[in-house]
Amino acid sequence: MNMQANVPIRGPLIAIGGAEDKSQEAAILKRVLTYSATKSPVVGVITTASAIPEDVFKGYETVFTTLGASEVLDIRIRDRSDAAAERFIAMIQRADVIFISGGDQMRLTNILGGSPVLEAMRARHAEGAVVAGTSAGAACQSSTMVYGGAATDSLRKGAVKMAAGFGLVDGVIIDTHFLERGRFSRLMEVGATNPEFLGVGIGEDAAVLFDDDKILAFGPGHIILVDSSNITGSNVFELDDGEAVTVHNVTMHALVDGYGYSLSDRRVLGPEELGANSLEPRIAYT
Amino acid sequence: MNMQANVPIRGPLIAIGGAEDKSQEAAILKRVLTYSATKSPVVGVITTASAIPEDVFKGYETVFTTLGASEVLDIRIRDRSDAAAERFIAMIQRADVIFISGGDQMRLTNILGGSPVLEAMRARHAEGAVVAGTSAGAACQSSTMVYGGAATDSLRKGAVKMAAGFGLVDGVIIDTHFLERGRFSRLMEVGATNPEFLGVGIGEDAAVLFDDDKILAFGPGHIILVDSSNITGSNVFELDDGEAVTVHNVTMHALVDGYGYSLSDRRVLGPEELGANSLEPRIAYT
Repeated sequence: MNMQANVPIRGPLIAIGGAEDKSQEAAILKRVLTYSATKSPVVGVITTASAIPEDVFKGYETVFTTLGASEVLDIRIRDRSDAAAERFIAMIQRADVIFISGGDQMRLTNILGGSPVLEAMRARHAEGAVVAGTSAGAACQSSTMVYGGAATDSLRKGAVKMAAGFGLVDGVIIDTHFLERGRFSRLMEVGATNPEFLGVGIGEDAAVLFDDDKILAFGPGHIILVDSSNITGSNVFELDDGEAVTVHNVTMHALVDGYGYSLSDRRVLGPEELGANSLEPRIAYT
Repeated sequence: MNMQANVPIRGPLIAIGGAEDKSQEAAILKRVLTYSATKSPVVGVITTASAIPEDVFKGYETVFTTLGASEVLDIRIRDRSDAAAERFIAMIQRADVIFISGGDQMRLTNILGGSPVLEAMRARHAEGAVVAGTSAGAACQSSTMVYGGAATDSLRKGAVKMAAGFGLVDGVIIDTHFLERGRFSRLMEVGATNPEFLGVGIGEDAAVLFDDDKILAFGPGHIILVDSSNITGSNVFELDDGEAVTVHNVTMHALVDGYGYSLSDRRVLGPEELGANSLEPRIAYT
């Protein structure tokens, strides 16, 4: 465990689109570790979303150990009593990187929502620890979370299922496996329901770092941003559930590694503008 | 066969996204027939794109007969010699509605491209006959035709495969099965390669009528328009094949039955603006 943060800066928050490379290369997971201020960080893996936590944990234990983690903690929370257990809270408090695996995001919010473990996670994040999640572990990070709805059914009112997420990041709604599962229409529907929130569609083996006002893309895959703030029309409020939704003037951006986006300016930031330093780990510890 | 057109107006052109309802309801196919100025039109079905032309023809024969066609012609062109055969040219000349089935659009352009049958089709269309196609039969209608590329690979330079289509409509590039197969990224890549052309993504059981400067949506499914004319940046020309494409500020619209789009104004037209008459068949014959 590291020293307490001297500066009240929140740690990095990373969302991964799922199916990230776990081989020798492991570009994204390697980068996740570099965002920790610790050279050989303690990584705590939360496998609550998964139905096969043992296999999932072993996979991450191997890759994070290879990548230089000093220890990989098996935070195997399976129910709400686990989510209040002292031993898991202690693990969270020791972790420099808290990694949330994929699976079903509703398991995450159902089991961890309002729990002492989630509280400990927020506190540790506030102290500067990295919080990263993939697939379900990414989707849960926004205040409103997408948890279901077949892409082929979306843009039918009510097709996209939403619930309250962990609210680790403001102003966005996250979707994952985005290009691979053709989820563009999901975030178009989400945008029509409330244009205030930027849709962040993360492809497989792609990731974003939420850095205050900026979203920074990294990894081999694509990020699709769905900006509904300028939509000029939609019939969504006139419809009954199941009826076909129209929406006009949705703005989309396809970003890759090295590109970013300013949430306040609602515009893409190129690699030159971001500068070489922008993706360097921020130092939260002294 | 009908009288010659007195007015030099081109007939309606209809593109269907595939998998259109062929049951009693058959909203789209019913509408296709109403666009003919003839009460009981002769329908010619071109099954060249299909590997199972007999089955495909029988399906359309049944539904078009049920819907009131006076005759359904089996224009079974399988190779380039068929595409020059007098008997097929005669069928085209008799047809009030020329319907191009689904299958592989490369078969359509390979077999019909530059052929006397295609020439006859263009002449008949110029006389006022309806030309309609579904899936491959829709994709082939634009000047540049998308014929392949997995949605999951697209936005990698060169992933989307394009070739020359029949050029029955200007200013657009058509893609089909659009929401069902998650093809948004295909038309984003297409738009990055040349922003002049509006991407017209047609969902299954959805259709558009190209009416001069206007695109009119009909049927139960969705139309997604991908407008790249205002893109502010893309790395596409800097890349080698296979590298990840960025593109910024793509505008998308989701339309349903009753909505339209003005190609010259690049804006959505609502049902009120279009008026009740806009989707009525145009009278090309006296």
